[in-house]
Amino acid sequence: MPDDSLPENLADSLADIADLDLDRTRRRGYPEAIYCEGKSPEQVGLIAANMLQHRGITTLFTRASPDHASAVLAHLPDARYSTTARLLAWPPEPPEPTGRPVVVIAAGTSDLPVAREAYLTARYLGRAVELIVDVGVAGLHRILARLETLRRAGVLVVAAGMDGALPSVVAGLVEAPVIALPTSVGYGASFGGLAALLTMLNSCSPGVSVVNIDNGYGAGYLAAQIAAPA
Amino acid sequence: MPDDSLPENLADSLADIADLDLDRTRRRGYPEAIYCEGKSPEQVGLIAANMLQHRGITTLFTRASPDHASAVLAHLPDARYSTTARLLAWPPEPPEPTGRPVVVIAAGTSDLPVAREAYLTARYLGRAVELIVDVGVAGLHRILARLETLRRAGVLVVAAGMDGALPSVVAGLVEAPVIALPTSVGYGASFGGLAALLTMLNSCSPGVSVVNIDNGYGAGYLAAQIAAPA
Amino acid sequence: MPDDSLPENLADSLADIADLDLDRTRRRGYPEAIYCEGKSPEQVGLIAANMLQHRGITTLFTRASPDHASAVLAHLPDARYSTTARLLAWPPEPPEPTGRPVVVIAAGTSDLPVAREAYLTARYLGRAVELIVDVGVAGLHRILARLETLRRAGVLVVAAGMDGALPSVVAGLVEAPVIALPTSVGYGASFGGLAALLTMLNSCSPGVSVVNIDNGYGAGYLAAQIAAPA
Amino acid sequence: MPDDSLPENLADSLADIADLDLDRTRRRGYPEAIYCEGKSPEQVGLIAANMLQHRGITTLFTRASPDHASAVLAHLPDARYSTTARLLAWPPEPPEPTGRPVVVIAAGTSDLPVAREAYLTARYLGRAVELIVDVGVAGLHRILARLETLRRAGVLVVAAGMDGALPSVVAGLVEAPVIALPTSVGYGASFGGLAALLTMLNSCSPGVSVVNIDNGYGAGYLAAQIAAPA
Amino acid sequence: MPDDSLPENLADSLADIADLDLDRTRRRGYPEAIYCEGKSPEQVGLIAANMLQHRGITTLFTRASPDHASAVLAHLPDARYSTTARLLAWPPEPPEPTGRPVVVIAAGTSDLPVAREAYLTARYLGRAVELIVDVGVAGLHRILARLETLRRAGVLVVAAGMDGALPSVVAGLVEAPVIALPTSVGYGASFGGLAALLTMLNSCSPGVSVVNIDNGYGAGYLAAQIAAPA
Amino acid sequence: MPDDSLPENLADSLADIADLDLDRTRRRGYPEAIYCEGKSPEQVGLIAANMLQHRGITTLFTRASPDHASAVLAHLPDARYSTTARLLAWPPEPPEPTGRPVVVIAAGTSDLPVAREAYLTARYLGRAVELIVDVGVAGLHRILARLETLRRAGVLVVAAGMDGALPSVVAGLVEAPVIALPTSVGYGASFGGLAALLTMLNSCSPGVSVVNIDNGYGAGYLAAQIAAPA
Amino acid sequence: MPDDSLPENLADSLADIADLDLDRTRRRGYPEAIYCEGKSPEQVGLIAANMLQHRGITTLFTRASPDHASAVLAHLPDARYSTTARLLAWPPEPPEPTGRPVVVIAAGTSDLPVAREAYLTARYLGRAVELIVDVGVAGLHRILARLETLRRAGVLVVAAGMDGALPSVVAGLVEAPVIALPTSVGYGASFGGLAALLTMLNSCSPGVSVVNIDNGYGAGYLAAQIAAPA
Amino acid sequence: MPDDSLPENLADSLADIADLDLDRTRRRGYPEAIYCEGKSPEQVGLIAANMLQHRGITTLFTRASPDHASAVLAHLPDARYSTTARLLAWPPEPPEPTGRPVVVIAAGTSDLPVAREAYLTARYLGRAVELIVDVGVAGLHRILARLETLRRAGVLVVAAGMDGALPSVVAGLVEAPVIALPTSVGYGASFGGLAALLTMLNSCSPGVSVVNIDNGYGAGYLAAQIAAPA
Repeated sequence: MPDDSLPENLADSLADIADLDLDRTRRRGYPEAIYCEGKSPEQVGLIAANMLQHRGITTLFTRASPDHASAVLAHLPDARYSTTARLLAWPPEPPEPTGRPVVVIAAGTSDLPVAREAYLTARYLGRAVELIVDVGVAGLHRILARLETLRRAGVLVVAAGMDGALPSVVAGLVEAPVIALPTSVGYGASFGGLAALLTMLNSCSPGVSVVNIDNGYGAGYLAAQIAAPA
Repeated sequence: MPDDSLPENLADSLADIADLDLDRTRRRGYPEAIYCEGKSPEQVGLIAANMLQHRGITTLFTRASPDHASAVLAHLPDARYSTTARLLAWPPEPPEPTGRPVVVIAAGTSDLPVAREAYLTARYLGRAVELIVDVGVAGLHRILARLETLRRAGVLVVAAGMDGALPSVVAGLVEAPVIALPTSVGYGASFGGLAALLTMLNSCSPGVSVVNIDNGYGAGYLAAQIAAPA
Repeated sequence: MPDDSLPENLADSLADIADLDLDRTRRRGYPEAIYCEGKSPEQVGLIAANMLQHRGITTLFTRASPDHASAVLAHLPDARYSTTARLLAWPPEPPEPTGRPVVVIAAGTSDLPVAREAYLTARYLGRAVELIVDVGVAGLHRILARLETLRRAGVLVVAAGMDGALPSVVAGLVEAPVIALPTSVGYGASFGGLAALLTMLNSCSPGVSVVNIDNGYGAGYLAAQIAAPA
Repeated sequence: MPDDSLPENLADSLADIADLDLDRTRRRGYPEAIYCEGKSPEQVGLIAANMLQHRGITTLFTRASPDHASAVLAHLPDARYSTTARLLAWPPEPPEPTGRPVVVIAAGTSDLPVAREAYLTARYLGRAVELIVDVGVAGLHRILARLETLRRAGVLVVAAGMDGALPSVVAGLVEAPVIALPTSVGYGASFGGLAALLTMLNSCSPGVSVVNIDNGYGAGYLAAQIAAPA
Repeated sequence: MPDDSLPENLADSLADIADLDLDRTRRRGYPEAIYCEGKSPEQVGLIAANMLQHRGITTLFTRASPDHASAVLAHLPDARYSTTARLLAWPPEPPEPTGRPVVVIAAGTSDLPVAREAYLTARYLGRAVELIVDVGVAGLHRILARLETLRRAGVLVVAAGMDGALPSVVAGLVEAPVIALPTSVGYGASFGGLAALLTMLNSCSPGVSVVNIDNGYGAGYLAAQIAAPA
Repeated sequence: MPDDSLPENLADSLADIADLDLDRTRRRGYPEAIYCEGKSPEQVGLIAANMLQHRGITTLFTRASPDHASAVLAHLPDARYSTTARLLAWPPEPPEPTGRPVVVIAAGTSDLPVAREAYLTARYLGRAVELIVDVGVAGLHRILARLETLRRAGVLVVAAGMDGALPSVVAGLVEAPVIALPTSVGYGASFGGLAALLTMLNSCSPGVSVVNIDNGYGAGYLAAQIAAPA
Repeated sequence: MPDDSLPENLADSLADIADLDLDRTRRRGYPEAIYCEGKSPEQVGLIAANMLQHRGITTLFTRASPDHASAVLAHLPDARYSTTARLLAWPPEPPEPTGRPVVVIAAGTSDLPVAREAYLTARYLGRAVELIVDVGVAGLHRILARLETLRRAGVLVVAAGMDGALPSVVAGLVEAPVIALPTSVGYGASFGGLAALLTMLNSCSPGVSVVNIDNGYGAGYLAAQIAAPA
Repeated sequence: MPDDSLPENLADSLADIADLDLDRTRRRGYPEAIYCEGKSPEQVGLIAANMLQHRGITTLFTRASPDHASAVLAHLPDARYSTTARLLAWPPEPPEPTGRPVVVIAAGTSDLPVAREAYLTARYLGRAVELIVDVGVAGLHRILARLETLRRAGVLVVAAGMDGALPSVVAGLVEAPVIALPTSVGYGASFGGLAALLTMLNSCSPGVSVVNIDNGYGAGYLAAQIAAPA
C-alpha cells in the first residue's frame, strides 16, 4: 500500500520536489543548475520535461549518472552529455564568449573529470576557456612551458589531488587570482581529498581561494563570475 | 554443522533477539519503534508476527529496507510502508492530532527522505505536521514566503545537508524551538554530514538543538514531545 | 658560548633571514608583505630598516604584535599600526582607489579584527573598501537592510565564525563573487574555526570560495585582485 | 600613530561595534544577551552604559570574565554577577516563573559552571528551575533517588563531560524532552568535550537533542522556550 | 605470464604465507588463532590442512567469511562455524570450563555478532560464559533485572555501539573488571564506532578498559585471561 | 553583589558540591577517590575536612595540583603527597599487599608521572607493585633483561607515549593480561597521546586492553581489580 | 551526442591524457611509472601501445587491476603482471642488481601485497632485494631470528598495518635507515591505516621515515635511491 | 611529607631516571641523544654530570629550553648551545665530515629553527651540511637559482610549514632522496603542521619520505645515515 497517498501534501508532484527558481537566470544571467545526485532519474526527468516550457533558459544538470542522462535525453534529446564531467547542457550550444579568458588546469590525468566539469561550466556561463592537463609539480618544466598561456588568463582554476601543491606554484607565477580545486584523487592519507584541500587552504602564495573537494561546477561558476565583463 | 546448537542459550528465539519493552507505550504514550538496520529480515519478521498479539500498540519499523518491508507485510499486510522514509507503520491509521502543530522543513530535495521520516514519526506520535521543501538559504525569498507557516508552529524540524545553514536562519525568524536535523547530503568536505552537524551545533541563533545525522526518527519523536499537549 | 658562531653560514644577517623578493612589487603591482608571526621583533626590525632603502615600495607587516610594531616604528616612525588588525603599513598613505569597490562584512563584532585586516589589505592594494559589521544570520533584517551596498560591490569578503552561515546567505543575494573568510570565533565544537570553514566549503550557493581560517590578509589580497581594473 | 583615525568609518563608536537588536526583546519576549568573549571590557562597558537608556529590557552578559564584570558593574552597579556561571544579569530580579518547571542536572561537580549558566538563563527567561548535582552514571542510585523530581519536569537539561552517558540514562526514565549539554570536563581522549558530544548525538534513547559543548546559555534558553506557557 | 615465478623467493608456499607460531599454544595454553580477513580462502585452506598434523592444538579461525568457512570445512569437516560470530573452531568441542565465570553483554540486538565472537572465544579458551542481550541504558530496568548474574561474574565483557554508555553503567554496579567492547553499530556521528569507543575510554566509572571496535576476539581472549584460575 | 545568594538552592555547601558515595568503599573494598581537576582548592579542602569524620576510609585525591595539596594538608597534615603523580593519600599507610603482584612499566622517563600514578593507586588498593622505567622498544635488550620480572606479574600496566609500541611487545612476552596506558608524551603527530592510543587499540598481540590517555589512576585501579585475591 | 566533440581541445588523444615525461628515465636512471588507478583500461592501453616506440625504457604500471593488466598485455604481451602487487613490468627482465641490498619486511601475511609492490619496485630499479614475511612484534623471536639478514641491508622497508609497531623495533636493531610503510590492514580504530601511520611518525627510534599508507611503490623507489651505488 | 620516601624503589636517582644506553654510540657510531622535553632541568643536569665520566662520547641534548641549557652548562661549561635549534652539543667540536654532503632547506624564515636542528644533528653525526633559507614555492625563481647546490647533495632535508609543497617540487628537481620535514608553522587549517604533513605524505613526486612534525633531530639523523660513507 503506497505511503505517499497517506499524508495529504506529500504527492511527488514537481511542486513538491523543487521550487525552481527560474528567475535566477534573469537575476544573475547564468544557467539554471540541477544537482542530480540524490535525485532519482524519474525526478530529474520531470524537471527536464518542465524545462521545455522555458525555452530561453539554459540548464545544466550536474553530477548526472548515465541513468540521469537517459532520463533527461528522453525529454531533451538535443541536450549534450559529457560522461567525463557527468554534465548535461541544454540547449547544447554554449553562448558567445565574453569577458576575460579562463584557464583550467588539471595537475594529473586523474583530475581530468573534475577539471572538465569546471571547464564546461565556465564555458556555458559565457567565458572562453582553455584546458591544460598533466602539469604536476613533480616535473616543473611542464608547467613552466605553459607560462604564456597561464599569464593570459583573467582567472585560473587549478585542479589537483594527492599533495595539492600545484595551485601554490601557479599562483606564484601569475598575477590573476587562482581558484584551487581539490580533487579526491589519491589514496591512503589523502583521505578523499582532505590532504589536497588543506594544502590549498594553507597556500603560502597570496591570491588563492578554495572550493569544495571535486566541486568542478562551483569552480567553473566562480571563474565565470570573476572573468565576467565589468 | 550449525553453530547455534552449540552454546546452550544462543538459539535465535525471539527472547534472544530483543527484550521488547512493550510497556513503554503505556509509560510514554508513544508507538513502539523497531530499528531494522543490523537486523535480518527474518528477525524483523519475527517481531512483526509477535505484534499481532499486541493489537492496541502502534509500531513503527524504522530504517526498513524493501526486504525488511516484505518481511513485515507478510505478517501485517495492512501496514503502511513509505519507501522514501524507509518507515513502516502498523496499524496504518495515524492518531487524531493533538497539541501544537509541527513544521518540518527540508532545505533541498535531497533532504526529503530524512525530513519525511521526521514528518511521519511526529504524525504517528499524534501531532499535526506540515512539510515544506526546497527552501535553502541560497534563495532567501523562498523561506521568507513561508513565514506565516513557520510562525504558526509549536516546534520546527529543519533538515539540511551541505552547509547546514538553514536552521540558524529559521531560528532567527520564529519564537518556537528549532530541532536541527543534519543530513548526509553533500560531497567532499561535507564528510557525510559532519559539516552540517558542526554548523548546527555552532548556530549563532539561540533556540536550536541538534540530533544525529540523518536521524529523522529522533527529530520527529522530539518534536512530538515538545509540541505535546501539556 | 654562542652557537651561531659555529656553523659557517648561519649568522643572523638579513641575507639569512629572508631572500626578499622586492621585484614582486613591480611584477604584481602590490605591496611587499612581511608575515611577522614566528619572526622575532629583532628580525622584523632588521627588515624594516632595510625598507628605508626602497622608498618607492609599500610594505605591509601582517600579524604584528605590539612588540613587532615597536620594532618597526623605531625605524619607520611614520608607519601606521592598526592594533585591531595587527597590521602595519608603510608608507602610511594608501594609494588612490581604482577598480571596483570591495565590501567587507563581519558577521559579528568578534569577527572584526580579521575583517579589518581584510579591509586594510584591500585598501592598501588600491581598492575602495566598505566595512559592514554585526549582520549575522540570526537577524536577517540587518543584512537585508544593507542590500543596496552589497549589490554595489565588485567582490565581497564575508568574515564569520561559529556557524559560518553568512557567506551562503550573502551569495544568494548578490551577483558578485563572495570570498568566505572563516574566523576562529566560537567555542566547543567550533574547533577553532573548523566548523565555519566546513560550512563555507559546503555552501549551497554558487559563487563562494574560501580562504584559510583568520586569513584576513589573503582575503583582502584576493578581493583586490578580483576587483582590479581590467 | 593611531590606526583607527585612518580608514574613514572604523572609529570604535558603539554603532561600529554592534547593531543592537533591541526589538528582539519585544519580538521573542526574552532578555537581550551580550556574548562577552572576544569583546574587550571597554566594549562591554560601552554596551552596559547604553542599556541605562533601555530600563525595561533585561540584559544577560554571558561568558563574562571578572574584567568584563567590573566594566559592567561600573555602569550598572546593581547587576548580579555569578562568578561560577560567568553571567551578569541586569536588572537583578528574575521574572515571576511561568510555564512548566525546568530541571537542570550536572553529572559531576566539575560540570557545575556550565549547568549553572543554563540554570540562570532559564530562570531569567521566566521559568522555575531546579538544580541537581553529582548524579553520574557510575552510581545509579544517586539519579534513581531523584526520580520524582525528574518526572515533574517539563524539560530537562543534562550537563555531562567525560563519557557523557547521563542524558541517555535520564531520557529513559522520563517522558519530557531532554536537552543534552556536553561539557569540556575530562582529559585525554575526551578531546575537549568531543567524546561527550558524540555520545549524546548517538543516544540510544529517543527524546534527546544536543547543544554545543559548554553552551549553558543555549541549553537554558531552549529549555525556557520548550517549557514556556502555550 | 605468472608473476610469482619471477622473484626467486615469492612462491606462495605455506612457509611464505605465515610462520605459524605453534608453540604459542603450549606457551600460553590457549588456542592458535588465524585471522582470516585479508587472506584468500585458498591460503586459509592451506593453513587448515596443515592443522591436521597438529591434532592436539585447538584452532580458531576468526573473521571467517562463508568462503573461508568452506575452505576450512573441506579439510576439517567437523569444525564448527558460527555464521553470526564469523568464527570456526576445530576441534569442535570446547574445553571443560575452569576459573571464574565470564558474562558477555550485548547492549542491543545489533551488537550480537561481536558479542557472540567474544562469547565463543572465551568459551574455547576454557571459561564458562553467559550471554545477556538487549539491555541498553534506554531501559534501565532490563539491566537491573540481571543484577544477580552480573555480580556473579569474575569479569564482564560489555558490547555496545551508538552511545556506548552501557559499560559505564555496568561498571558502577559490579566489583569485577569490565572490558568495554565498542561496536560499529550506529550511523551518522557514530563514525563507525568511534563515538562508542570514545565514550568508553572516558568512562567515569573506574574499572573499565577498552579494546578495538568490533574486536570480539580480543575481548573474549582478555576475559579468559583475567578469569583464568590463578 | 554576590550571585550565589540569589538562586535559592545554589549555596556552595558541601551538599551542593558532591553527593559523596562513602558506601562505595564498603561495596567495592577500595579507597574513595576525589578527582581534583576542575575543583577549586577550597572545594577540595572542604572535602578533606569532611573526611576527618570518616577515619576508617582511605581517600585518594587524584590530579592534585600543589594548591590542592596545600588545601588537603591543612586539614589532613599526615596525608602523603606525590608531586610526580599528583596524588594525595590519606591515611598515609598503604594496606598490606594481597593478591598477585602488579608490574608497572614506563617506556621512557617522561612517562614516569603517569606510571607512578598507576603504581600508587594499585598499591593503595592493596597490591604489591613493581615499577620498571625506561625500557622502550628502541632498545629491546632493556625490556628483555627484565623478562623474569615481567613473567612474575599477575597483570602488567605499560605506560608509553610517542609510538606507543611497548604494550604490544610486552604482551607477546607474557601470559598475564596487559593494561595499555597511553601518555600524552610526544609532539607533532602524537596529537596529545592520540597516536599512542590508536597504536594500543590496534595491538596485534591479544591480551591488551586500553584506558584513557594519561589515566594512571584508572590503570592502577583496574590492575588492582584483576590481581585481587579470588 | 558525444560531448567530447564539443569543446575544441578535449579529444581523448594521448596528448590530452598525459604529457609523458620520457626524459625522466634518462634524468634519474629509473623506469617510467604509470599510476593506473583513476585511468580507464583504454587510456592505460593507449599508453602501453605508445611504449612500443620507446623500447629502451623500462615501464612499471602500478595499481593495475586485472582489466588494466589485460589492456597492457594486449599491446605488450611479454610484460609481467603480479596480481598480488598489482604491478606490471615491461620489459619483463629486471636489471642486474647494483648498490647495497634492500630488505623488505611484511609484519603479517595481510601486508604482503604492499610489501611485494615495494619489493618489485626496488628490484626493477636495480637493487638486490630480500623479502621477509610474518615477523610481527607479537612474537619477537621471529624477527630476532632474522637479525643477520636485517643487519646486512643497506636500507630496510618495513610494512605493517594494525599497530604499526614493527618499524620502531627493527630500527632499534640495525644501523641502516628504515622506511616505514603503513598498510591499511586492520579494522575499527585502525581507520584505514591511520593508526599505523601515526605510530610510525612517532617512532621513538631514530632513523625511521614514513611514506603514505599502502604506498609500496614509493617505499621501493626510495629504498632503491638510498641503496644506489654512490 | 615527601612521597618519594614511600614506595621503596622510586628514589630519583639517575638509575631511576634513565637506563642510559651508552653502548649505542659504539653500536651505531653516532652521538648519544637526550630528549629534554618532559624532563626537569635537574634531571637533565644529573645526566650532564654523568657524561663527564664518558669523555669519548659526544652527546646532543635536544629540545633544550634555556633552563635545560643552564643546567647542562653548569656541568659541561664548554658545551655549545643553539638557542634557535634548542640543541646543546658536547664536546663542542663536530667531527670531521665524511660521506656525501647533506643539504637542508627551510621554505621560510619561520621554518629555520627546525631546519637548524636538522642541520646541527647531521653535522654532529659527521656529515658536511649546507643550509638554504627562504625558497618557498610562491617564488620558484629562488629555488631554481640554487639548483646546482641541490643537485650536489647526497640527500636533502626540506623543512616547510603551511602548504608543505616544497618537498614535492624539490624532489622533482634532483636525483637524491628527499626527507620531508613538516613544521608547525602556520595558522588556522594548518592544524599545527598536520596540513603540511599530509601534503608531504601525498607527494606526487617519488623519492620523498616524511618524519614527524618539527622533528628536526630525526630528519638530521636520517640524513646522516643515508649520506654516510658505505
